[in-house]
Amino acid sequence: MKNCIIASTSTLYNGEYLDYLLPELQLHFKDCKTVLFIPFARPGGITHDEYTSKAAIVFAKINIVLKGIHTFENQKEAIQNAEGFFTGGGNTFLLVTQLYKNDLMNILAETVKKGTPYLGTSAGSNICGLTMQTTNDMPIIYPPSFQTLGLIPFNLNPHYLDPDDQSKHMGETRETRIKEFHAFNSLPVLGLREGSWLDVKGEKITLRGNLQARLFRQNQLPQELETGTDLSFLN
Amino acid sequence: MKNCIIASTSTLYNGEYLDYLLPELQLHFKDCKTVLFIPFARPGGITHDEYTSKAAIVFAKINIVLKGIHTFENQKEAIQNAEGFFTGGGNTFLLVTQLYKNDLMNILAETVKKGTPYLGTSAGSNICGLTMQTTNDMPIIYPPSFQTLGLIPFNLNPHYLDPDDQSKHMGETRETRIKEFHAFNSLPVLGLREGSWLDVKGEKITLRGNLQARLFRQNQLPQELETGTDLSFLN
Repeated sequence: MKNCIIASTSTLYNGEYLDYLLPELQLHFKDCKTVLFIPFARPGGITHDEYTSKAAIVFAKINIVLKGIHTFENQKEAIQNAEGFFTGGGNTFLLVTQLYKNDLMNILAETVKKGTPYLGTSAGSNICGLTMQTTNDMPIIYPPSFQTLGLIPFNLNPHYLDPDDQSKHMGETRETRIKEFHAFNSLPVLGLREGSWLDVKGEKITLRGNLQARLFRQNQLPQELETGTDLSFLN
Repeated sequence: MKNCIIASTSTLYNGEYLDYLLPELQLHFKDCKTVLFIPFARPGGITHDEYTSKAAIVFAKINIVLKGIHTFENQKEAIQNAEGFFTGGGNTFLLVTQLYKNDLMNILAETVKKGTPYLGTSAGSNICGLTMQTTNDMPIIYPPSFQTLGLIPFNLNPHYLDPDDQSKHMGETRETRIKEFHAFNSLPVLGLREGSWLDVKGEKITLRGNLQARLFRQNQLPQELETGTDLSFLN
């Protein structure tokens, strides 16, 4: 049975890395002594080691040893043997490229679908949708495909940002960009604000955190969803 | 001799479509009775016809007939015979995909390099760089390549946006995103604020408009450039 936490962001304003999620993570990973970390999105271009160290400090607080997947000679085996997964944020194009390059996209999806607990934040959440086509990230590298893990039957827009009425900037708002996606794609898109996450248990998908999320569907008006909403109806 | 206007945006806050550029365009296209419009970026998913009509109204003010490339049976021939080009804004992934799908990327680059005057705004400017990898757009469609026209020897970030010190949003700033690009790519990137444009005459590239632009180079601190700066040193 799928068991995932899919979070908009790792870090809240004025917060520390993962701190707002820590009580959830303690439950989520309660049967894990180790968790496999996927640092491929590399925020700011830091090394895989640096990124793993940063995340490991937080996991140590809940007595879990975090191991970077890049330290394994056989990364497929590392995925198959993992007790839990955490895919950190950064650049989604980079993350997806590396998962394909190392031939890990399918095996990661299969393993998570069988029930190994998964945590994603930001880019690590983007890849839980059917495609990465509603990421906010810059295309700094060309991935072999935009298809992603498909752990949920729709797409995500993490770090969802409401339009700023005061802005004089003429670039597209997030809502406009998602509307452009829907001019050519029929998948629903969930705009997940910072502080929200999805709790996936089998086929049940629940919106968690204190905020509403904004659901965009092709040819429909956007809809605000309350926390606690069961999103399984998007199946 | 190359002859291009490469603008950050088509429209300024409180302005009308292309109005701030109109005196420039009158000079730029002074020898043109017609200009070929490339509407493939389709902002908001509008039709090619709708987009062409919108732009044609502006060009009519300077006595130029704007013709949408989509109305030509032989689009390559339309490019070769054009007196001038205007590629409008919208989604860069869509624009680039369509240019490749119709096998027009190379012939457009060749024709502009021979001297046919070109105007790009936003997505239509993004494609003037060597790659589209510093676009702000959402990857709503998968292009066969990120390579673009290469009319200038660096990349652009149109609609460049300075970090907002007041923001509580934890998504990456534009500067952070460009820094991530530079973790994996060595091309310079020019952040072109709304109201700025590049004037390209042969190999001379001049920053125009009232604003500074922000130049990002790998392993160097960002640099503010004054309007009037000759950017040929980036060759």
